[in-house]
Amino acid sequence: MTSLEDLPLRPELRGRSPYGAPQLDVPVRLNTNENSYPVPETVVDAIGKALHAELADLNRYPDRDALALRADLADYLGHDLGTANLWAANGSNEIQQQLLQAFGGPGRTALGFTPAYSMHPLLALGTGTTWVDGRRGAEFGLTAADAVAQVEAHRPDVVLLCSPNNPTGTALDPAVVTAVLAAAPGMVVVDEAYAEFARPGTPTALSLLPGHPRLVVTRTMSKAFGFAGGRLGYLAADPAVVDAVQLVRLPYHLSALTQAAARAALAHRDALLATVDAIKAQRDRIVTALRERGLRVAESDANFVLFEVGGDQGVVWRALVDRGVLVRDVGLPGWLRVTAGTPAETDAFLTELTIVLESL
Amino acid sequence: MTSLEDLPLRPELRGRSPYGAPQLDVPVRLNTNENSYPVPETVVDAIGKALHAELADLNRYPDRDALALRADLADYLGHDLGTANLWAANGSNEIQQQLLQAFGGPGRTALGFTPAYSMHPLLALGTGTTWVDGRRGAEFGLTAADAVAQVEAHRPDVVLLCSPNNPTGTALDPAVVTAVLAAAPGMVVVDEAYAEFARPGTPTALSLLPGHPRLVVTRTMSKAFGFAGGRLGYLAADPAVVDAVQLVRLPYHLSALTQAAARAALAHRDALLATVDAIKAQRDRIVTALRERGLRVAESDANFVLFEVGGDQGVVWRALVDRGVLVRDVGLPGWLRVTAGTPAETDAFLTELTIVLESL
Repeated sequence: MTSLEDLPLRPELRGRSPYGAPQLDVPVRLNTNENSYPVPETVVDAIGKALHAELADLNRYPDRDALALRADLADYLGHDLGTANLWAANGSNEIQQQLLQAFGGPGRTALGFTPAYSMHPLLALGTGTTWVDGRRGAEFGLTAADAVAQVEAHRPDVVLLCSPNNPTGTALDPAVVTAVLAAAPGMVVVDEAYAEFARPGTPTALSLLPGHPRLVVTRTMSKAFGFAGGRLGYLAADPAVVDAVQLVRLPYHLSALTQAAARAALAHRDALLATVDAIKAQRDRIVTALRERGLRVAESDANFVLFEVGGDQGVVWRALVDRGVLVRDVGLPGWLRVTAGTPAETDAFLTELTIVLESL
Repeated sequence: MTSLEDLPLRPELRGRSPYGAPQLDVPVRLNTNENSYPVPETVVDAIGKALHAELADLNRYPDRDALALRADLADYLGHDLGTANLWAANGSNEIQQQLLQAFGGPGRTALGFTPAYSMHPLLALGTGTTWVDGRRGAEFGLTAADAVAQVEAHRPDVVLLCSPNNPTGTALDPAVVTAVLAAAPGMVVVDEAYAEFARPGTPTALSLLPGHPRLVVTRTMSKAFGFAGGRLGYLAADPAVVDAVQLVRLPYHLSALTQAAARAALAHRDALLATVDAIKAQRDRIVTALRERGLRVAESDANFVLFEVGGDQGVVWRALVDRGVLVRDVGLPGWLRVTAGTPAETDAFLTELTIVLESL
């Protein structure tokens, strides 16, 4: 039998495992920051109808430029954005891959501040971009001065910021984005996958787009919209950035079905985003409950909470799985991440965590 | 206003235009080798039903490994292939991009024999792979000896073959694939996007997979299946190759909708592939008719025909567009490519081409 070692794989990929959290079939899945609420029936019907309308013409390639979808996304974001400012792909992973293909790549570097979204270094690897692992301060914080010092030291072609940050959950101080924009010699990407869950008063980097053509804000419909299975990520930026990614995007990368389903979901955004407040309430409940039990918990502007269990977090993770609750071990010694879902899921998580921690 | 020149774009992308044929709204579209037949109503209903069943759970990420779809694709291909031999992505472009990310990339080379599928060099560019433009012989032919000589001269990490070849339409002599497999130091990818349209007796490289772990056959549902809007490409290879691409694939790259729609289409393959014979008949009719008019025409095993108009093919292309018939100018001086569609489309194409050529 042939093994991977027998194939002429790129050397930097040797010995690696495919990225991805375990997909386990347990009663309470709180490990990938999905939206726990199923798509409401009225929206199911609307998306179903929109999809059906595409099917007879599926023999034809989709609109390569996804113009109607981009117009709808611009309308959703507001901030005076238009179709020319928007670009969409199969998840924000593909958006960020395209950005690294256009502005990173061989001989170029990308800087991120770890721990952040763990796909960022893997996207750098996959595009031949040299990854520079930046540092965060105490309690996973990042100050403007610290970020600027690292940007000036490394002069990266692409800076990847993440706000609210995954896996910590905390939104960046907007002063950090402004300072990095002023100091960075290249592109600055702000990954705002969880923006809709931010606490009141948390600004989005979208407001910084005017006058900053090297700023890119990426978003996703996987989280607040409950559209993870539909795979729709997007970016907002100066139209020149959209021109740039079009040089590296695969032609017809976005299917007619994806475009139609996403447009129907956007048309019913009030119904879909109605879950956001309920999820934020559970998020805040988890933060409060864990702190009351004396655990350290990162501030969260997202639909998940990072909390310290101390010792070997893998043991706690396994014990929770055995009790039917799947959370995420993001590889931070002593810490675990849990998605905020329904009240019943919070109940189950808090109950089982208490039992597990008391048993250790 | 910011222009692309103001952004820190990779130097090799500067001055380029996005890939893609013009998407023009004319009565007869024969430029992207789509299947001209709409999806039959019974299949529309089946796909619609399959999609509807996914919608309530769209808040959950799709099966990252697309196991059920891969099993169905293996069943369709036959050749004793199983789930572990198959991998799927958003079009065969994404499949080939993943192959280049895993086996090509910075510091590595890919060799193709021009003219072939024009995305191959662009996929190399997008993945930082050095592209080597191999030569074809007279009448766009490629002999085993010529191919081997070029493989030995360049020692490429990846060889990209295309059979039936696009844009010429002719299937490779299987001796070429066998000889290249024996001579190539790295991976050999055979792009069989048009395999279902091959003339009787034309073998597929699938039969060479046993014992050749460095061989990869890529396919698509865009052509014979009439599923271009659904975006589903796939590969068949040794399971170790599937392990390799999983190291570079984006997690959850294939939406739940894509997986469900493709599975429903595969379940109704008899209805969908019923168009293939009719298209082949039109393909053969075009070849015969153009030859009867004294034009040089490449042999075709695909759903398109490459034919020589002489002189400036761009003038003929434009004149045809003005008369409502869109064909493809693939940049080969003196030649144009036309998709074989319905009998009425062939009528229109032959009629308008006659008028255009007589008017020049």
